[in-house]
Amino acid sequence: MNTIGHIFRLTTFGESHGAAIGGVIDGCPSQLKLDFNFIDAELRRRKTAQTAVASQRQESDHVEWLSGLLDGVTLGTPIAFLVCNEDANSSDYEALKDVYRPSHADFTYEQKYGLRDWRGGGRASARTTLPIVVAGAIAKQFLKEKNIQISAEIASMGDLEQARREGDTVGSIVECRIMGVPAGLGEPLFGKFSAELAHAMFSLPAVKGFEIGDGFALAKMKGSEANDIFINKDGKITTATNHSGGIQGGITNGNDVVFRVAFKPIPSIAQPQQTVNRAGETCEIAVEGRHDVCALPRGVVLVEAMAAMVTLDAFLLA
Amino acid sequence: MNTIGHIFRLTTFGESHGAAIGGVIDGCPSQLKLDFNFIDAELRRRKTAQTAVASQRQESDHVEWLSGLLDGVTLGTPIAFLVCNEDANSSDYEALKDVYRPSHADFTYEQKYGLRDWRGGGRASARTTLPIVVAGAIAKQFLKEKNIQISAEIASMGDLEQARREGDTVGSIVECRIMGVPAGLGEPLFGKFSAELAHAMFSLPAVKGFEIGDGFALAKMKGSEANDIFINKDGKITTATNHSGGIQGGITNGNDVVFRVAFKPIPSIAQPQQTVNRAGETCEIAVEGRHDVCALPRGVVLVEAMAAMVTLDAFLLA
Amino acid sequence: MNTIGHIFRLTTFGESHGAAIGGVIDGCPSQLKLDFNFIDAELRRRKTAQTAVASQRQESDHVEWLSGLLDGVTLGTPIAFLVCNEDANSSDYEALKDVYRPSHADFTYEQKYGLRDWRGGGRASARTTLPIVVAGAIAKQFLKEKNIQISAEIASMGDLEQARREGDTVGSIVECRIMGVPAGLGEPLFGKFSAELAHAMFSLPAVKGFEIGDGFALAKMKGSEANDIFINKDGKITTATNHSGGIQGGITNGNDVVFRVAFKPIPSIAQPQQTVNRAGETCEIAVEGRHDVCALPRGVVLVEAMAAMVTLDAFLLA
Amino acid sequence: MNTIGHIFRLTTFGESHGAAIGGVIDGCPSQLKLDFNFIDAELRRRKTAQTAVASQRQESDHVEWLSGLLDGVTLGTPIAFLVCNEDANSSDYEALKDVYRPSHADFTYEQKYGLRDWRGGGRASARTTLPIVVAGAIAKQFLKEKNIQISAEIASMGDLEQARREGDTVGSIVECRIMGVPAGLGEPLFGKFSAELAHAMFSLPAVKGFEIGDGFALAKMKGSEANDIFINKDGKITTATNHSGGIQGGITNGNDVVFRVAFKPIPSIAQPQQTVNRAGETCEIAVEGRHDVCALPRGVVLVEAMAAMVTLDAFLLA
Repeated sequence: MNTIGHIFRLTTFGESHGAAIGGVIDGCPSQLKLDFNFIDAELRRRKTAQTAVASQRQESDHVEWLSGLLDGVTLGTPIAFLVCNEDANSSDYEALKDVYRPSHADFTYEQKYGLRDWRGGGRASARTTLPIVVAGAIAKQFLKEKNIQISAEIASMGDLEQARREGDTVGSIVECRIMGVPAGLGEPLFGKFSAELAHAMFSLPAVKGFEIGDGFALAKMKGSEANDIFINKDGKITTATNHSGGIQGGITNGNDVVFRVAFKPIPSIAQPQQTVNRAGETCEIAVEGRHDVCALPRGVVLVEAMAAMVTLDAFLLA
Repeated sequence: MNTIGHIFRLTTFGESHGAAIGGVIDGCPSQLKLDFNFIDAELRRRKTAQTAVASQRQESDHVEWLSGLLDGVTLGTPIAFLVCNEDANSSDYEALKDVYRPSHADFTYEQKYGLRDWRGGGRASARTTLPIVVAGAIAKQFLKEKNIQISAEIASMGDLEQARREGDTVGSIVECRIMGVPAGLGEPLFGKFSAELAHAMFSLPAVKGFEIGDGFALAKMKGSEANDIFINKDGKITTATNHSGGIQGGITNGNDVVFRVAFKPIPSIAQPQQTVNRAGETCEIAVEGRHDVCALPRGVVLVEAMAAMVTLDAFLLA
Repeated sequence: MNTIGHIFRLTTFGESHGAAIGGVIDGCPSQLKLDFNFIDAELRRRKTAQTAVASQRQESDHVEWLSGLLDGVTLGTPIAFLVCNEDANSSDYEALKDVYRPSHADFTYEQKYGLRDWRGGGRASARTTLPIVVAGAIAKQFLKEKNIQISAEIASMGDLEQARREGDTVGSIVECRIMGVPAGLGEPLFGKFSAELAHAMFSLPAVKGFEIGDGFALAKMKGSEANDIFINKDGKITTATNHSGGIQGGITNGNDVVFRVAFKPIPSIAQPQQTVNRAGETCEIAVEGRHDVCALPRGVVLVEAMAAMVTLDAFLLA
Repeated sequence: MNTIGHIFRLTTFGESHGAAIGGVIDGCPSQLKLDFNFIDAELRRRKTAQTAVASQRQESDHVEWLSGLLDGVTLGTPIAFLVCNEDANSSDYEALKDVYRPSHADFTYEQKYGLRDWRGGGRASARTTLPIVVAGAIAKQFLKEKNIQISAEIASMGDLEQARREGDTVGSIVECRIMGVPAGLGEPLFGKFSAELAHAMFSLPAVKGFEIGDGFALAKMKGSEANDIFINKDGKITTATNHSGGIQGGITNGNDVVFRVAFKPIPSIAQPQQTVNRAGETCEIAVEGRHDVCALPRGVVLVEAMAAMVTLDAFLLA
């Protein structure tokens, strides 16, 4: 269950304060010359995002490539990579060892597994998304050669400065557009392009909502307003509007695929909060560690990366 | 890709005007005595829904059980079932054979497969959801024995009578609640309970949005507002609020799982619409067949059925 | 677990004396015009085989096609089909309801599921292989268009007439050859063509051995004897010998794929045998029902069918 | 396709002369305290085996654990590990860059992927089996707590010393026994315990045959000889003989599971051999590198490891 994809498959591993975070990509087409500068740039987008607004953990995020490449060209065999955890400071978390932080995964992991890695959020840390950025960057590179481009941006965000001052955090909405995607991608009935996207986005931390095209607004429309009329544009059949977000019957129609993802506020806030510990006793915590005010900047890169993986996977399946 | 689930797996088959619609359930626990009255009642909920507001196609929806049972008790082997298509009237659709109905899957299926079953929507018909109701009813029965109950209802809907008068259709939002679900269900990182629900709901026709807990509203909140404080309630650890919708880190926390699903308006409207045909020529259509004004009444049963399957699957995996 | 294949996937259902035996094929390429005469001929090969040597159960084996076709052409959607069980006579088996027949699956199914369908072997009946013949026939038809042909034959068999006179049964070995298979099929490390074949063959009832190329004999050879020297034959690279059976490193090398499958004797013999019943009491049985002397004639068709499915699946994955 | 297993899943990566060989184990039960001494001992069995008879490559095979553990206890999250390739000497292989070694995977990999890692056999090297030993050791440890033990031994082998003198290699047969396995493991129809074992064994390099119980010998027997009579032994139902190798209808019957695996001779021989190069020109090679005379000693450990993984997986599925 730590694997995503059907043909282009990413398996990830790693805890926040363990030895390393990494992944194995299976099913990547052979003979693709990887652009390591681009991959590093994508990782920097994630880091820059962090430092610009919030994060204080300093990691070089240097990717070690373990397999699947010969002179930087993909062999068709599994591409394994890792990033060592350098700046992990578990003592920050010692006090939280037996306490369930509100709206974190501490309690649920412990219920599921009987134990948890309490250091830095363990497997539930946002740091575990790093391999997604790497795999997404490779997928993007492949798609670019097919003239498929993916671009996400901030659609809505709380007041970050105010939140920081108040020791609080904010939620956000990311909108993403997949351009140049051919008609016919996606598999009925249970492998719809929309369903695969929804699954991928909800696999990102803190995601609580997903909508495609006009999404929830469509539920308020009439059919006559919501329908996308087909037209012949210079000999190519397309739709005059794009309420459907490029997907009909779960399959791409050649128009841009457009969707939005809602991220809840990061639950680690500096304000004191009441909670309970493992013994069931009420206690109070104020998170001291190094934390972000908003998942959003990182969210933009993650949404793009997931979209790229889903698109490539559907492309290889078609 | 016509299979859903990991342990409790449903494979469906059938086109709207083909010989039959049906499914095969693999991985159902053995020694469960099926309550056929309940299954029929669930199918009637779907039918009643239809006739109450809109649908005119008359089908007895009599389920034939083909395998997997001995004296009504599950054997642990695949449970196959089918419903014959009795009242299919393909001549209604003859005129639409070469025309792409707006916001239907006609165009995308043809792009994907090079041909399509034009009779009644073929594989993309809402009739293909019937096996989901059957499998969901079986899942519900199993869950009920574990004190897990699932209940959906209409959260929002357009004016149905006005739409019918205007030859139009309306969208809707369904809200669903899974009660009694134990803590610890769901699999990180790519088998989160929330991601499995999202995938299942987006596998239903006409779904364009999904949110869990406070969903998109969380994106506008601060962390201090959105966090669910843990409390000790009569010796049991739970949360004081449920903004998270019962899921943290992708895993159930023991609170009710609450989510909403947005359905777009049914695209078959009686009003005339412009479109293009296979030759790329502009033409006009007005859908004459027997159609619903709203997917919603049926949507309630479908959302419950999918939720039951996802919950049972997670239960069997845990 | 009643599904086989990655892209071309067959899910089967049905018990020997249930309502029907059938299957759902998902992932069959669209736009293939099915040759129903060929499919029926393949099913007759299975029947003729039966009647020639042994079987007495009379079934018309008429295939009902439920979905996935329009005017006999594949739509790309699931192809469901079934054969009704007409001549099932469960009273033959009433006496065996609480008895574990030696080397049958009665005991193991009951251990696994807590109950079993005792009528005619239930899910463990050889009749459950019928859907494999249907799916294999479709796969063969597709492969034939790619100039890939599959042919199996009897490599070894006990004395059938003597066995019949003695109320006994015999085992057999089937040898199969896949001709025209392109180089490069099969997926390392855990999707090797040889491993997929082995898995498929061991999914057939009564199979107890599988070897590829020179198989077990290779374990007695030296490397200098076993190696297949590469040669340039009219501009095409091939091997001078074929000890490897057309597969190296798990991947086809363009030479014929050759393998052998060992079937144990059918365990239902007319001679009296000692066994125990559900209560653990020793008792004696002599199987009275309608049974075969040898699985082999049917085995030839089944081995071909499985080989066709595995080859098509690898072809679609490559 | 570099993943094996359904619940207990191993994904492997790495080429012979790449940076590292390793794996990710997903689905390992939580709260298992790993016995690293045992894992190292299993790896030494593999190494000792090598040095005793043949191999000259010197690797410390030191396992680095990257994730999934806290104080040596499994967290239920993915367990990633790797072994660096220290002693890889690619210059040995420079001369073979454009030559297809007989009965190696050079030609087939190149046909499949369009390129190959020619250094030391690349992904097709026997070194890629190292992660299987690690995962198998973990599986064994879990099974041991359930009183399930696995033991393989040499059943047949060529004359090793003679082969070494002649610059040749020999094949071998390994017999394996799984003791204490409960009745009821394995999934009909396409997840049979026997089929899963066959698939796993054919995933090992150089395997060309697999048989269970009396295997190919059963094909020569009569039913009256081959059947395993059920008996009541001290209140427990078991079989008097074990021709079936502990499996009936694909499901374990509680008796020992017994099977044999045929390994072909290692194709790298010191004797000169004719072959062709990429340009299709005939040439001669004599393999100079560091190679084994027989896969067998290593084979014993690998067969046990695979058997342990298959058994644990079936155990977790049941």
